[in-house]
Amino acid sequence: MVQSNKKTIIMFSGDLDKAMAGFIIANGAAAMGDDVTMFFTFWGLNILRKPENVPVKKGFLEKIFGWMMPRGAEKLGLSKMNFWGMGAVMMKKIMGDKQVNTLPELIASAQALGVKMVACTMSMDVMGIKEEELIPGLEFAGVATYLGEADQAGVNLFI
Amino acid sequence: MVQSNKKTIIMFSGDLDKAMAGFIIANGAAAMGDDVTMFFTFWGLNILRKPENVPVKKGFLEKIFGWMMPRGAEKLGLSKMNFWGMGAVMMKKIMGDKQVNTLPELIASAQALGVKMVACTMSMDVMGIKEEELIPGLEFAGVATYLGEADQAGVNLFI
Amino acid sequence: MVQSNKKTIIMFSGDLDKAMAGFIIANGAAAMGDDVTMFFTFWGLNILRKPENVPVKKGFLEKIFGWMMPRGAEKLGLSKMNFWGMGAVMMKKIMGDKQVNTLPELIASAQALGVKMVACTMSMDVMGIKEEELIPGLEFAGVATYLGEADQAGVNLFI
Repeated sequence: MVQSNKKTIIMFSGDLDKAMAGFIIANGAAAMGDDVTMFFTFWGLNILRKPENVPVKKGFLEKIFGWMMPRGAEKLGLSKMNFWGMGAVMMKKIMGDKQVNTLPELIASAQALGVKMVACTMSMDVMGIKEEELIPGLEFAGVATYLGEADQAGVNLFI
Repeated sequence: MVQSNKKTIIMFSGDLDKAMAGFIIANGAAAMGDDVTMFFTFWGLNILRKPENVPVKKGFLEKIFGWMMPRGAEKLGLSKMNFWGMGAVMMKKIMGDKQVNTLPELIASAQALGVKMVACTMSMDVMGIKEEELIPGLEFAGVATYLGEADQAGVNLFI
Repeated sequence: MVQSNKKTIIMFSGDLDKAMAGFIIANGAAAMGDDVTMFFTFWGLNILRKPENVPVKKGFLEKIFGWMMPRGAEKLGLSKMNFWGMGAVMMKKIMGDKQVNTLPELIASAQALGVKMVACTMSMDVMGIKEEELIPGLEFAGVATYLGEADQAGVNLFI
């Protein structure tokens, strides 16, 4: 069976642990020469937020969502045993001790290796997240783009 | 590489946000002419429950599960930031303001577009959910049917 | 379209319900003659822990993680409605009444059917989990091995 060397990953969850899993797979595949596209949707958009507050015009509920959701890769919690952030701090401490790449490092490496990172425009609209609030180097598209890529890929994951 | 235009999605989670993600993908693919099958298993069955109470004979634990689990697409919570339902209400308010399709609309649209929706019979047995409690238009099958479909599909997601 | 009969499942979550879903799919596929590889990473490693305490040398944070995480398939909670373990007990009681295979039975069956079970070595390092703490019959590998297998598989799930 001939397989495509293309892979897609939908990043739905904004959890530190799941984000790391997604980026470890993406980096591994890209390092092996694969063509990798990551689609960031719903909570997954939080992974891409800039750490600083970016002044943009938002509606009331959009502002609330914006305040309550973690602003960027450094602020994400764990999907389990997070304990109001303590779990994430512990996990990052352990990873630092073991010299595992941090999530920001994994994101930078993915970009350097040519992983295509696409932010879902419909989710951005719903969450009230604007382009200026996200890190540079992204593309912006919707579900049709995802489907077009997935159709050509041999591995498609939803994380 | 020739790809199948078939897609399968396992709907395991009964969260509003994940259900929306699944149905947005299913609707998008079906609108592009793909052959889409969704398998509803475990908590995902709650997406398909009728909103009204359907009188069926159940054991004690089955009744408790039935009472505690959300009854249909209108009652689902968010996977994150749900805050006892307030998050889901906020999300639905925002989506209404932005004129995003609601989950019940997405389900109806998927059915109209010919998306095959299969309820997992083993999960129904375990959760104590009967056919009469689920919306019309479903098929009923088990893991073997899923595997048969997934084998012919180019995109297979677990949500 | 000619499809591979190979399947891979990443077991990321250590929840009882998700673990059962993964093993039900793996067993079904293996029973139909498919070649199935399961990769256990992050919380998914807890599914493979031996129930007894295995004396191994660990750092302080590794010990804390080890104490807090469930030790093996019998100790897992549900991803929803767990209520400090009561939900998992109820679910197991119902499954017992309905004569559904338990998770330990599903794991044994998967091993008997030749499902390849791989523990992610990077996750083991981060979580501080040693080979001696895991059930026998596993392989140990990293993301490159996963990618090699996924490239040859027709169905790849992330659970």
